[in-house]
Amino acid sequence: MSSNRCAVCKYFRRRCPSNCIFSPHFPPNNPQRFTCVHRIYGASNIGKMLEELAMEDRAIAVETLYYEAKCRVQDPVYGCAGLIPWLQQELNIAQSELAKTRAQIALVSANYVAFQLNGVDDDPSSSWFS
Amino acid sequence: MSSNRCAVCKYFRRRCPSNCIFSPHFPPNNPQRFTCVHRIYGASNIGKMLEELAMEDRAIAVETLYYEAKCRVQDPVYGCAGLIPWLQQELNIAQSELAKTRAQIALVSANYVAFQLNGVDDDPSSSWFS
Repeated sequence: MSSNRCAVCKYFRRRCPSNCIFSPHFPPNNPQRFTCVHRIYGASNIGKMLEELAMEDRAIAVETLYYEAKCRVQDPVYGCAGLIPWLQQELNIAQSELAKTRAQIALVSANYVAFQLNGVDDDPSSSWFS
Repeated sequence: MSSNRCAVCKYFRRRCPSNCIFSPHFPPNNPQRFTCVHRIYGASNIGKMLEELAMEDRAIAVETLYYEAKCRVQDPVYGCAGLIPWLQQELNIAQSELAKTRAQIALVSANYVAFQLNGVDDDPSSSWFS
């Protein structure tokens, strides 16, 4: 019976009840997963958070809590929150470059059409790819 | 004296010592800030995390912990970790669109040069802006 205890009950050296709230998410063969979230949130807070969630949401919640806890252990100052402004900045740069490049294409296209229709520019290439 | 207690010591109705680890980061006029991180991490874990950090890193750590806690309160399943794959996906989309658009420009440019030099294509526009 004791070999079936989840990682949390094993950690606290207690019996693992059949309705243990941790058991589906903290298997005994991965004690490091619990150690990590326990270090950041504490077992009691994790239990409380799981209790407040619907059964079908708990697995995702444990995954995201574990992800955030791992990031916090690796980077105790910024945690995973440090990634968000960096990603937002990279996204802004890429989107603004894309808008600029699309505007250049629209200009090239417009110049080419004007050149074909009216011959208004003897050397349209001078402005096309500048 | 009691009016100078930090939000944490006020919450626990205890004297706020002059070297209180929470005091610089949890002013008494913003009790909600502490309530939020306390709900997710617990005061004891926050204290432990702060103790392990250099003085100059603690303010940023509290900011990022508060940010993550707010996200977890708002979205108990995904927390702020849910934002990261979304931002990464948006960044991948924007970067791949940018690469495609730049490749189109390079093709247009090459076709135009070939057209000017050799007249190899009577109607280069057919492939330029497709």
